[in-house]
Amino acid sequence: MERMKPRTLSGFMELLPAPQTQFERMLESLRRTYALYGFTPLDTPVIESAEILLAKGGGETEKQIYRFTKGDSDLALRFDLTVPLAKYVALHYGDLAFPFRRYQIGKVYRGERAQRGRFREFYQCDIDVIGDGKLDISNEAEIPSIIYHAFTSLGLERFKIRVNNRKILTGFYEMQGLADQAGDIMRTVDKLDKIGPDKVKALLLEEGVSQEAAAEILRFIAITGSNEEVLSALEGYRGRSQVFDQGLEELGAVVKYLSAFGVPEDHFAVDLTIARGLDYYTGTVYETVMLDHPEIGSICSGGRYDNLAEYYTDKKLPGVGISIGLTRLFYVLGEQGYLNDGLVTAPADVLILPMTEDLSSAIAFATQLRQAGVRAQVYGEQKKFKGKMSYADKLKIPYVAFLGEEEIAQGVVKVKDMTTGEQEAMAPEKAAETIAQAMALRAQGKPIREKG
Amino acid sequence: MERMKPRTLSGFMELLPAPQTQFERMLESLRRTYALYGFTPLDTPVIESAEILLAKGGGETEKQIYRFTKGDSDLALRFDLTVPLAKYVALHYGDLAFPFRRYQIGKVYRGERAQRGRFREFYQCDIDVIGDGKLDISNEAEIPSIIYHAFTSLGLERFKIRVNNRKILTGFYEMQGLADQAGDIMRTVDKLDKIGPDKVKALLLEEGVSQEAAAEILRFIAITGSNEEVLSALEGYRGRSQVFDQGLEELGAVVKYLSAFGVPEDHFAVDLTIARGLDYYTGTVYETVMLDHPEIGSICSGGRYDNLAEYYTDKKLPGVGISIGLTRLFYVLGEQGYLNDGLVTAPADVLILPMTEDLSSAIAFATQLRQAGVRAQVYGEQKKFKGKMSYADKLKIPYVAFLGEEEIAQGVVKVKDMTTGEQEAMAPEKAAETIAQAMALRAQGKPIREKG
Repeated sequence: MERMKPRTLSGFMELLPAPQTQFERMLESLRRTYALYGFTPLDTPVIESAEILLAKGGGETEKQIYRFTKGDSDLALRFDLTVPLAKYVALHYGDLAFPFRRYQIGKVYRGERAQRGRFREFYQCDIDVIGDGKLDISNEAEIPSIIYHAFTSLGLERFKIRVNNRKILTGFYEMQGLADQAGDIMRTVDKLDKIGPDKVKALLLEEGVSQEAAAEILRFIAITGSNEEVLSALEGYRGRSQVFDQGLEELGAVVKYLSAFGVPEDHFAVDLTIARGLDYYTGTVYETVMLDHPEIGSICSGGRYDNLAEYYTDKKLPGVGISIGLTRLFYVLGEQGYLNDGLVTAPADVLILPMTEDLSSAIAFATQLRQAGVRAQVYGEQKKFKGKMSYADKLKIPYVAFLGEEEIAQGVVKVKDMTTGEQEAMAPEKAAETIAQAMALRAQGKPIREKG
Repeated sequence: MERMKPRTLSGFMELLPAPQTQFERMLESLRRTYALYGFTPLDTPVIESAEILLAKGGGETEKQIYRFTKGDSDLALRFDLTVPLAKYVALHYGDLAFPFRRYQIGKVYRGERAQRGRFREFYQCDIDVIGDGKLDISNEAEIPSIIYHAFTSLGLERFKIRVNNRKILTGFYEMQGLADQAGDIMRTVDKLDKIGPDKVKALLLEEGVSQEAAAEILRFIAITGSNEEVLSALEGYRGRSQVFDQGLEELGAVVKYLSAFGVPEDHFAVDLTIARGLDYYTGTVYETVMLDHPEIGSICSGGRYDNLAEYYTDKKLPGVGISIGLTRLFYVLGEQGYLNDGLVTAPADVLILPMTEDLSSAIAFATQLRQAGVRAQVYGEQKKFKGKMSYADKLKIPYVAFLGEEEIAQGVVKVKDMTTGEQEAMAPEKAAETIAQAMALRAQGKPIREKG
């Protein structure tokens, strides 16, 4: 038979079992956090009608989308979880209770140019709160608290959530008589971290901004300090634009509630330079950076928008949401050596080695272990002892249990702790209990462990 | 703005929040069962090179597959999880320990003609054990025990796992001098349940089987009774075909171990009529039927194969596995009213209603609840009291907690049990504990509840 060389497409992450287990643990942690905050899980098709996905149309999206026909249907793979959410809420509007709080964890597809650390298939982990007609500002304060909880539960500590409000930016540019150019200017200002203030100024002048206005813009984005200090500096602009004033109110409310939500001051900063590229954010916007790895960019972004589903319904559906691009984050964490390898990645907690031809006792013991919540595998292959042990070694299975004639006769199992090498004969119930306790202890670590 | 009518493609399941929660619960239960048996989770891309997916080629697969080009690449969506597994094992052979035990739960795609209860995108929940060169028969006995555990954990009770061995069939047809026609004959015999023995016989004669052989075949497939009885009847054929004899040994071993694995006799039957359509099974084959709904067909099928990845590698990789088509099963359970609606489907366990303008106390209480593992939502919208309560009602949130000036001053929260209507003021710690305990109790039910 002619054989085909097996391969996985470039830009598609396919993990070996141990890292896959680490990835699953992160998914589990995120699911748990999102659920604790009262978000309901959602799942939508990966394939949608192309017309639906591209209702907004244009831009990068259209170039990157996986689009194809099947029969008469013009289909496409979702490129984010927001457009499917918009469709879902518009379609099922009458069956939902608002505010509608959902999380969705799923794969999305973008045919980007393949490059290291960039993926064409990747997991997004989204939460959104959608209001019917209106949505209270407290939701905008809750989002960073969820981000904070999500990342600390994962084990990440050295990160900062940056917050801004689009109304403040819009109002500020309005004051400068630059309302029409605001979008372009924000895109330029967004480069501040990368190219510095001088180059930002040069670009602004190139774009036709006056010397005076450019200076004013640079003064504005140079406002830094504690959240108190930034808010107080912003007070100086009050009274010149209604939009600005509203934005300042909102930002003040978000900052105020954040401490009630238990987010420490050092994990959170008002940052007037962030705007988020997407043009549909209208209020609070978020970015999250790893303090030791700013080069990675934002690992969790989002914001407040006024009209989730304007392409599908005339209902006004304001919302706020964030998204974690987990595939890329996982890749980066792996590269940085941040994945906690102290956590068990073995497929089983115990490997049972029957030393008799009849496997019945071994199988019965496995059943007992599983009832105690212990993951157990009976090794039934005909191999030499050494081969069996090296299987446990290779998979890093924490315990091996031997069951020979003697043990069966005495009603015990011999349990070897593969970490310490210690070996002890004990009653099966005792073994199940001991291992279950030890595994519960070992499971307490978090998926991420930053380096000191 | 012109609006587009939102829609979801036909043949694609998209659930409302409550059934989605029921679906997630089933996924969770299956993950837990598979993990307890020592299977490692796996995830592979939804998109693969078309050439890779179609290496085996031909037939229904090629017609149903979603295939398209992107740039120069000829791509396709996976139509099952077995071909990706074969590719995975061939590609990562050197990094895996054998037997390699993996579970994979993921969506697969088949462009079938849309019809009620048939899906073009659906979840498969697969387990497979892959050996390197060989694989012990005990694995074939373990599989039904996992099916049994998986279904009973889901809450299904009235089902039966049917087992046969392909070697027995092959050997039997060899004895009849019908080795070359065995495939066609098995396909005909497979219709026995639907069309009865007389029509099966007529079809066999049409296919050119002699009167005598047809009578012999009908006698063979009429062998029924307890597993003991069937095995003993099969003993009568021993000694006339090596393949048959080996199959009988294997079937005997599987039956013997099944009781050690704790599978009750009434959930398991040797059934000589089943063969499984796929031509790559070579040993034990499985089907699972719901006793009260035979019309649904098999809800969990699989078997033993000799060469998982022959299209990608010259390594001999025998394996055994099964697959549950969860989307269809979920659909059927819903239609039959078998989904346990006693289990909570609300996005939160508690809805906190702040009765003061400042939300700080409410938020602090929510944080306390979440630390106790209770899913809490603060309702921050400006609505009338009735509107807030109807939100809790609509979502069937089990508890509502009120926090007004008075409660805050007294250091208590007023907790209302939405099921009983009872209301009690208590300390926040007490409330967290009480609700956590009640929710743990309510979570004990299983996802499926068969009707009496």
